[in-house]
Amino acid sequence: MKLVCKKSDLIAGINIAMKAVSSKTTMSILECILIDATEGKIKFVANDMELGIETVVEGEIIEAGSIAIDAKIFSEIVRKLPDNEVVIEVNDETKANITCENAKFNILVKSADDFSYLPSIEKNDKIRISQFSLKEVIRQTIFTVNEADKNKILTGELFEVTGNKLKVVALDKFRIAIRYVELKEEYENHKVLVPGKSLNEISKILTGGVDDEVNIYFTNNHILFEFDETKVVSRLIECTNYFDTDKMISNDYKTKIDVNKRELVDCIDRATLLIKEGDKKPVFLTMKDTELELSINTFIGSMDENIPISKEGTDMMISFNPKFLIDILRVLDEEQVSIYFTNPKAPCFIRDEENNYIYVVLPVVQ
Amino acid sequence: MKLVCKKSDLIAGINIAMKAVSSKTTMSILECILIDATEGKIKFVANDMELGIETVVEGEIIEAGSIAIDAKIFSEIVRKLPDNEVVIEVNDETKANITCENAKFNILVKSADDFSYLPSIEKNDKIRISQFSLKEVIRQTIFTVNEADKNKILTGELFEVTGNKLKVVALDKFRIAIRYVELKEEYENHKVLVPGKSLNEISKILTGGVDDEVNIYFTNNHILFEFDETKVVSRLIECTNYFDTDKMISNDYKTKIDVNKRELVDCIDRATLLIKEGDKKPVFLTMKDTELELSINTFIGSMDENIPISKEGTDMMISFNPKFLIDILRVLDEEQVSIYFTNPKAPCFIRDEENNYIYVVLPVVQ
Repeated sequence: MKLVCKKSDLIAGINIAMKAVSSKTTMSILECILIDATEGKIKFVANDMELGIETVVEGEIIEAGSIAIDAKIFSEIVRKLPDNEVVIEVNDETKANITCENAKFNILVKSADDFSYLPSIEKNDKIRISQFSLKEVIRQTIFTVNEADKNKILTGELFEVTGNKLKVVALDKFRIAIRYVELKEEYENHKVLVPGKSLNEISKILTGGVDDEVNIYFTNNHILFEFDETKVVSRLIECTNYFDTDKMISNDYKTKIDVNKRELVDCIDRATLLIKEGDKKPVFLTMKDTELELSINTFIGSMDENIPISKEGTDMMISFNPKFLIDILRVLDEEQVSIYFTNPKAPCFIRDEENNYIYVVLPVVQ
Repeated sequence: MKLVCKKSDLIAGINIAMKAVSSKTTMSILECILIDATEGKIKFVANDMELGIETVVEGEIIEAGSIAIDAKIFSEIVRKLPDNEVVIEVNDETKANITCENAKFNILVKSADDFSYLPSIEKNDKIRISQFSLKEVIRQTIFTVNEADKNKILTGELFEVTGNKLKVVALDKFRIAIRYVELKEEYENHKVLVPGKSLNEISKILTGGVDDEVNIYFTNNHILFEFDETKVVSRLIECTNYFDTDKMISNDYKTKIDVNKRELVDCIDRATLLIKEGDKKPVFLTMKDTELELSINTFIGSMDENIPISKEGTDMMISFNPKFLIDILRVLDEEQVSIYFTNPKAPCFIRDEENNYIYVVLPVVQ
């Protein structure tokens, strides 16, 4: 195999493929990137057995071939090369020469035969969505996912397609995040649970352009995201019985407040300073006619602050884990947000009029 | 005590004082900043018993007084306050109110009586140096200091004043770094060993201006750096018998090369990629008439690269721990550097014609 690529193109390809390289594994082949130049294109492939990525890299194939190379070493070497053309040459399947200007590296590699290629996906059922919408919807929900949770259902996000609507749901034991995205066409219904880890990695690769599109294909066990010159395949989480979130949501409320998001975030942020790790002190929200008083009292000291609100309904006092509130407020793009309360022991709802999102948070009951 | 300061002034003062706050201590008073407004100025003081810092903070004293406040909490709170005037008020010596706009914090504090003030220093013997020169000379030598070395002499830097010359020496078991600074006046002779840790912290506080000056005062046990509105006092390391570095340096050589510093650094940097942690592989330097070949061979693979040099004397092959060379090259400002060799078992010298610096590095003898 002999390839000539620009350093910058190699780095772009490595950055994408690295997202599916296992960092914690005893199988050294899972720490490799496969360089596959057997079919007229240079492809970088990585596969940690849950997530697989294949991306096309610009360059010239002088001699076809394929090898697997340790991703970390390959990445480090390429990054430190001069900003010029790089020649990658393999003669005997055990060593690769990487040459750039006067620098010559000779590195141990593995045979491509040892590499697990990506599962092949039948491309029957697809939806189309902009990179922007996909990246946003992941960012706005992923914070409730706990990748390490023993309950597998809590390690993933529900992607539910109904007609021209995509509904994305993520939840933990104290919060629910629901986002709706309008699609440009009507599609067949789908309901799959995608690992949060895969979504995290995908969102790092997405450029997030409004006009760049992603095709998403569904099969029984896999989901395939296809965009630009990249394919990302993830296993799905088995789940026949996802939570019925519609039942958890109510439209009734006793108190509604409209508040400036930035002011509320800064204020909760300051209160959080007084909480040491492991400490479970809540913040208290006291809502009066035109003011919200936020207060906290911990071993370190106390804080209180008033911010202006507009209120509808009765006065209310309720307490929350400040992290739960702030996580949600941080991902909202709106300058003003509306929060709905029923009573101090019932969840509060943060939602917009247009029904693009609903976030549910349980209060701390003293 | 009641003070009014701008947030930005508080942060500037905290950033300086924090450098002498102990992070690893069981004595909670050492984790505090003393706010002292008893003498018409607002001073922040910190003291970890080796290094002490006192700095003046702009602001208005409405009621004189002093208290000690946990540095980390104080710093975090001030940073998160709105960008406006901050009022610090203490009524009963156990709690401080910190107020800014609508945010009110109430924080536990300690009595100023528990705080160890800085040692008082007799200001007899001083030298003057620009902040720029002091900051530079620390940066260009400190990398050979090992703060954790059991041999106390290796944890400090020698500051030696002779007439109008300051000589700074730092060394470890494989390298010596010597820098000379010309002073504007003649001074009395001094020879003290300053802890590397203190110099590290001081260099972070120095603005590094060419026209900003530092007064350095010497006593038997302490060194005091005075600049801007800040005083830094460090204990000295006891040392009656520092290495006689002049004896370690020779002006003889068999081979001298002139090389582009950037090219040599990049080249060694690439070679270093092939060394895993704990691995002790050297780089080989082979000098021929117009070229230096740098090569390395490790368990990961091999690399070699040629860079142009101009050479004087015989051909030479010698090997080094690449880290030792690169640490030195990185702190040199010169575009071209000269390296002098005697034989493959003898130290090499990196020095300039003007005698501003001499670095000595031991080779790896195979």
